[in-house]
Amino acid sequence: MTDQKYSELAIEKIAKTKINDVDFDNINFGRKFTDHMFYCDFIDGAWQQPKIVPYQPMTLEPSARALHYGQAVFEGMKAYKDDNGNAFLFRPEDNHRRINISAARLAMPEFPKEYFMEGLTTLMKMDKDWIKPGVGNSLYVRPFMFAIDPAIAAAPSEAYRFMIICSPAKAYYTSKIRVLFSEKYSRSADGGVGYAKAAGNYAAQFYPTGLAQKRGYQQIIWTDAKTHEFLEEAGTMNIFFRVNDTLLTAPISDRILDGITRKSVIQLAEDSNIPVEVRRVTVSEIKEAATNGSLKEIFGAGTAAVISPISAFEHGGEVFEIPDTENSYALRLKKQLLDIQHNLSEDKHGWRYEVK
Amino acid sequence: MTDQKYSELAIEKIAKTKINDVDFDNINFGRKFTDHMFYCDFIDGAWQQPKIVPYQPMTLEPSARALHYGQAVFEGMKAYKDDNGNAFLFRPEDNHRRINISAARLAMPEFPKEYFMEGLTTLMKMDKDWIKPGVGNSLYVRPFMFAIDPAIAAAPSEAYRFMIICSPAKAYYTSKIRVLFSEKYSRSADGGVGYAKAAGNYAAQFYPTGLAQKRGYQQIIWTDAKTHEFLEEAGTMNIFFRVNDTLLTAPISDRILDGITRKSVIQLAEDSNIPVEVRRVTVSEIKEAATNGSLKEIFGAGTAAVISPISAFEHGGEVFEIPDTENSYALRLKKQLLDIQHNLSEDKHGWRYEVK
Ligand SMILES: Cc1ncc(COP(=O)(O)O)c(C=O)c1O
Ligand SMILES: Cc1ncc(COP(=O)(O)O)c(C=O)c1O
Repeated sequence: MTDQKYSELAIEKIAKTKINDVDFDNINFGRKFTDHMFYCDFIDGAWQQPKIVPYQPMTLEPSARALHYGQAVFEGMKAYKDDNGNAFLFRPEDNHRRINISAARLAMPEFPKEYFMEGLTTLMKMDKDWIKPGVGNSLYVRPFMFAIDPAIAAAPSEAYRFMIICSPAKAYYTSKIRVLFSEKYSRSADGGVGYAKAAGNYAAQFYPTGLAQKRGYQQIIWTDAKTHEFLEEAGTMNIFFRVNDTLLTAPISDRILDGITRKSVIQLAEDSNIPVEVRRVTVSEIKEAATNGSLKEIFGAGTAAVISPISAFEHGGEVFEIPDTENSYALRLKKQLLDIQHNLSEDKHGWRYEVK
Repeated sequence: MTDQKYSELAIEKIAKTKINDVDFDNINFGRKFTDHMFYCDFIDGAWQQPKIVPYQPMTLEPSARALHYGQAVFEGMKAYKDDNGNAFLFRPEDNHRRINISAARLAMPEFPKEYFMEGLTTLMKMDKDWIKPGVGNSLYVRPFMFAIDPAIAAAPSEAYRFMIICSPAKAYYTSKIRVLFSEKYSRSADGGVGYAKAAGNYAAQFYPTGLAQKRGYQQIIWTDAKTHEFLEEAGTMNIFFRVNDTLLTAPISDRILDGITRKSVIQLAEDSNIPVEVRRVTVSEIKEAATNGSLKEIFGAGTAAVISPISAFEHGGEVFEIPDTENSYALRLKKQLLDIQHNLSEDKHGWRYEVK
C-alpha cells in the first residue's frame, strides 16, 4: 500500500448540532455520540475516499465477515480541552501504530497514517464543542476497523471499513475498585492475540468478569494462561504494584496490550526518580508483600480509567486489603498525567498533540 | 427466560425468487444467499417476535457492540435432499444446544429452542428449492447471534440479534490437504473460549494460517497453547489419527470445539468395530508412527469439509508424507456419513431430521 494515491477527505456537515440534547453532567459512558463520524472503506485492495459525515446508522450485509469471524480491531483515545478552549490529543500516533499492529495479527490491512491523522484532527475540529474543559472531562475517541465482505467463508475478508466515532466521557471508575486474581479463566495465551486490541478479546472476558462482579470484585487481574502464577493486566488497564517504594509492572509480551498510559506512567515515574522494575510479577510475591505490609499500592492504568487505585484483591480464597497510603504514587501520577493532558503543566516528552 | 411467552413467527415472502440467477455448478462458497432469512431481536430482556423476511442488508449502529467487543457466536449446519425431493437436516438440536453454550461463554442470552427449530424448519421449507439433491450438494445453514446494543462501554450488550442465513454449498476441500502442526501460534488456552464457536476464535487463526499457506499447507493443526505437545483440532475441523487400525482423537476440553461430525464419526467407527481411543494425542507419538509406518491416515471432520483426508504434515522443520492406504477409514466413514445425511442408508441413531 506504500504506492497508494491519497484522495481528499470528503466532508458532509450535519444540518443542526445535537449537542443541546446532551446533559454533560450526567453522562452514561459510550451511549451518546457527537455530530460527525469518519469512515473509509477498503475495497479491491485499496482504501477508498475517506469521509466525514453526520453520525448515522449504516447498512451492513448479514454475511459481513466481522459478525461471523470476528475480524474487528479498535482503539481508544481521548481529546481534552484547556481553559482557553484549545483541544489536545495524547500521543495519537501511538494509537495509529497500535491499530495497525492489531490489524496485522487479524490479517487485516494497514490503515494509512495520513488518513488517520487527517480524519482524526478534522473530526476533532468539527466536533470541538463536544470536548468539555475541566480535568476529568474528555471526549472519548474510538477508531475501529472491521470486515464488511459479504461472504461467510472462514478466511480473511477482502473488504473492510475503518471508522472513528466519538463519545463524551467522564472518568470511568470513580472510587477504588476491588479485584480478583484469575486462577481458572484466562484472557490470552502465548502465540495468541492478547497483545492486539481485537474485539474477541473483550467478549471473552465478560462472563468471568460477571462472575467476579457477583462476588463484589469490579475487575479481574489476568494471570498467564499457562501457570496462573504471573500477574499480567486487567480487562482494559495495565497493572502496577508498589512494593515499598518500587513500582513493578509486567513486561509487554504477546499476551499483554502495550498500553500508552502504561508506558507514560513508567516514564513519569522515572522522571520523578521512582524506581520502576519492568519484570514478571508473581502472585506469590504480591501476596507475601500484602501480608508483610510492604505492598503499598496496586493500580490500573489505561485511557478510559486513567489511573484506577485498587483497594483489595482476592486469590486462593483469601482477601487482601490494601490500606490507604500517604504519598500515593497512583494519585501523584494521575495528577501528572491529567495535567499534561489538559495543558496545565510542561510536556517535556512531547505527548500533547494540539488540534488546530 | 423460561416463562417467556412465545410469539408467532411472522413471515414476509420474497416477490420473486433469485434462484435462477445462481449457477449451482460453479458455486463460490458463502457468497450467494437464499431468498429468505430468519431473525429475532433480544430487547429489554426478552426475545421479540421472530421473523422470516427476504434476504436483505440490515441497519446497524456504528457503536453496535459486536463490532467493538466481539460478542458474536455462530453455528454451521447443512441441509440435504434425497432423490425424491425430501429435505433433511443432520442433528440440528445439537447445533441449537451448542450455540447456547457458546453464547453463555460470551455472556449472551440463550436462544429458545422453540424459536430455533421453528425458524429453521420454516426457512428450510420456504427455500427448499435451494437444496439440491445429489451427494456432495447441500445447503449450508448459518445461525448466528451478535450484540447490537449501540453503546461502546466494555461490558455485555443489552440487545442482540439472532439470525439464520443460508448459502448453497459444495464440499469444502476437494483434494487431500497438507497441514502444519502448530509450534508457536495458539488457538485457545485453558480457561479461554476455544470450546465456543465465538467469532474472535476464527479471526485469530487467519494470520498464522496465512503464513502456513504461503509455505504450501492449507491448514494448521493446533496444539495445546501450554506445551504444544498435544494435537487438538484444525480451524474448522476436529482431527482423527489412524495408527495401525486404531482411531485416535483428542478429548473435548475447554480448548476444543465439541464437533457434531466428530462425535458422529466416533459412533460410526464404533458401529463398525473400529477401535477408537479418545485421549490426548502427542505430537511425538504421531511423528514416531509416521516414521515407523504405523500412521495410516489423518483426517479432519467437520460440517463444512465433511471428512477431509490429510496427505502430509510438517513439524519441527520435518515433513512427513502419509502414503495412500487401502481400506481408508476416512473414505469409508465419509461415505457412511453422507449416506445417512442424504437418506441413502439406515439411520439407526436417529440423526436425520426430516424437514416437513
Ligand atoms: C487489554 C487492555 N490493556 C490495557 C489497556 C490500556 O491501554 P491504553 O493505556 O493505551 O489505553 C487497554 C485499553 O486501552 C486494554 O484494552
Ligand atoms: C473450531 C472448529 N472445530 C471443529 C468443527 C467441526 O464441528 P462440526 O462437526 O460440528 O461442524 C468446527 C466447525 O464447525 C469448528 O469451527
